[in-house]
Amino acid sequence: MLEQQLRVPGPTPLPNRVLRASAQQMINHRGPEFAALLDSVVSGLKWALHTEHDVLLYPASGTGGLEAAVVNVLSAGERALFCTMGSFGNRWAAIAEAYGVDVVRLAVEPGEAIDPEDVDSILAEHPDINTVFVTHNETSTGVTNDLPALAAVAKGRGKLLCVDAVSSASCIPLRVDALGLDVVVTGSQKGWMAPPGLTMISVSPAAYERAAQSKLPRFYFDFAKEKKYQDRNQTFTTPPVSVMYAIDEGLRILREEGIENVWARHARVARMTRAAVRAMGLRLLAVEGHRSDTVTAVLSPAETPDALKDLLKHARTRYGLVLAGGQDDLSGKIFRVGHLGFVDDSDVYSVVCSLEQAMRDMGLQSRVGLAAAAALAAAREEETAAAEPAGVR
Amino acid sequence: MLEQQLRVPGPTPLPNRVLRASAQQMINHRGPEFAALLDSVVSGLKWALHTEHDVLLYPASGTGGLEAAVVNVLSAGERALFCTMGSFGNRWAAIAEAYGVDVVRLAVEPGEAIDPEDVDSILAEHPDINTVFVTHNETSTGVTNDLPALAAVAKGRGKLLCVDAVSSASCIPLRVDALGLDVVVTGSQKGWMAPPGLTMISVSPAAYERAAQSKLPRFYFDFAKEKKYQDRNQTFTTPPVSVMYAIDEGLRILREEGIENVWARHARVARMTRAAVRAMGLRLLAVEGHRSDTVTAVLSPAETPDALKDLLKHARTRYGLVLAGGQDDLSGKIFRVGHLGFVDDSDVYSVVCSLEQAMRDMGLQSRVGLAAAAALAAAREEETAAAEPAGVR
Repeated sequence: MLEQQLRVPGPTPLPNRVLRASAQQMINHRGPEFAALLDSVVSGLKWALHTEHDVLLYPASGTGGLEAAVVNVLSAGERALFCTMGSFGNRWAAIAEAYGVDVVRLAVEPGEAIDPEDVDSILAEHPDINTVFVTHNETSTGVTNDLPALAAVAKGRGKLLCVDAVSSASCIPLRVDALGLDVVVTGSQKGWMAPPGLTMISVSPAAYERAAQSKLPRFYFDFAKEKKYQDRNQTFTTPPVSVMYAIDEGLRILREEGIENVWARHARVARMTRAAVRAMGLRLLAVEGHRSDTVTAVLSPAETPDALKDLLKHARTRYGLVLAGGQDDLSGKIFRVGHLGFVDDSDVYSVVCSLEQAMRDMGLQSRVGLAAAAALAAAREEETAAAEPAGVR
Repeated sequence: MLEQQLRVPGPTPLPNRVLRASAQQMINHRGPEFAALLDSVVSGLKWALHTEHDVLLYPASGTGGLEAAVVNVLSAGERALFCTMGSFGNRWAAIAEAYGVDVVRLAVEPGEAIDPEDVDSILAEHPDINTVFVTHNETSTGVTNDLPALAAVAKGRGKLLCVDAVSSASCIPLRVDALGLDVVVTGSQKGWMAPPGLTMISVSPAAYERAAQSKLPRFYFDFAKEKKYQDRNQTFTTPPVSVMYAIDEGLRILREEGIENVWARHARVARMTRAAVRAMGLRLLAVEGHRSDTVTAVLSPAETPDALKDLLKHARTRYGLVLAGGQDDLSGKIFRVGHLGFVDDSDVYSVVCSLEQAMRDMGLQSRVGLAAAAALAAAREEETAAAEPAGVR
């Protein structure tokens, strides 16, 4: 059987250490063994996120975490700003609309990032907006926002700031407390090297205060209920124990490497991937300066959506390379390469050579070897890359 | 290290086959391998639940499933009947209240079951009630409702019927379609022999119709969104892949045994547990005729809540036996033995002997050997038990 190279932007492949850890026997989630596990996981998350805030855990996908942010900090009819760069930004706004929030939407074209000045203008124009929602890394387009600049604007105007860091946290520099982020949502199946099933949310004291006043209906995702339990090392409802074993081991691996090294590794593999893709004559969706370190979106080299589908299927069935297509309006127009979590240089070589070979098979590429050569060269450019501003390239 | 006998009413211990299955490598949740896994899991759930209805899956604990039922079938201000026998019935009503539902509560004393005649009276008195919520098996008290009788009343009056079967499904006879149940909620960590993290909900055509009309805000738990994706063998948001591997293997084990045999096994281990506990001079919380086949609640043999805590701690630390205390108002007054999922006669012998030994150590028991003798005798009483009405004993 063909071994798969799973390179979608989550779920990510898991290290064997994590798979083994996840297969441990169940424990009582109201007992001392679980209390120790929860404490270890939360400590690790706080370490990786550079925060002293609580990190609340819910059995849910990242979308559940996004809903939790909305229902805890907003009230029906309240005006709030949602900055969206694609499918997941749109989803966050749609959640708020489903709950009757008066959504002001700042949207950009696919591949573009949010301009902090636009945020500032909207906040100046609408002084009744008290909360800003922004995606750190848009998984659907491979774009990373300049979060420090956006945070400076929103916090400078005294707004509560909620960040979707589902596909960035642990991979792209993110210092929650230094940036003053109030609610930061992430998910186990991205950079954390764990299976899907857990969403983790850092919550600032100001966000708790807001939650105490906000009026949207909630129960499962209520911050106060979860905090009450986590303060005594339990969770409100039954936690996904095997996912927590896994993320605990994933965090152990991250600690061994050191978070700055993890960030540098993601910057490197992303740079290698981009170089390889461009060497094949392909074009990137994301604009220069905002290209993601966790997912690269590539404009389709095929003439039709069906031909793109055929290429991705051929790569999967012939070479075991599993890439993602486009979402929503980008379906049939792009494909995406995930390079986050359990990924290193050797994976990039494998991915880009398999992609090149598959393209050649489908008549979309005439020469081979260009991708690997470009990736090899890009791997050596670390000094230059280090000079770029952290978190945005 | 002491091997634990985990006998709380979920999470349950997992068979090695399930643990190994859960440790398989991740796959693309938008690809053909996941489509096959989802199809297999859903088919197995429909088989076990005796239903042709859709079974929708959400990454969430059972409480998330209970919230999903509420937000999809009700509207704010609408009157609905919640029949509650304890903590989880109360929780379901509290969820509805959090969403502004006009909750009519039919509550009974801890250990008692819902009287179908009381349900009939309330429905006669409040013709504006269109929906009934009932717990099949109350995990906090070890009481099983007479679901066929309750369903006959609610469906006889043309009401939509939602059932919390989190701690009963796959263990206690439950034929969803034969009883006309509209929404049935269960969770992976109970009888299904899988880790926590997935809630599974069967949804009738009438429930979908109601959802299309109902007005409570929802996004993550929306039935229509999930159905749209599951109809093409995907899930709306990223699914908990490792839990799905596990439940697929758990379902394979259930199929090998045969669901009627699984039900009979649960009836037998419950009967053995009750006999053993009574032989030790202990009293059961649940009334005769409604004692659960999945969890036995036992009145505390200790004089104080602290002494009960000491007993449970001693059983855990000295004998590796992990039992559950009481919840909410029953804290310090009862303890609970879970016997669901991966459990057989041999586990009962181990559990009741360890409990007896621990009680003797703590001066709560003078003779030993009574529990095992009673369990051994009760194991042979199958013919008698089979004469009792299915699902209620």
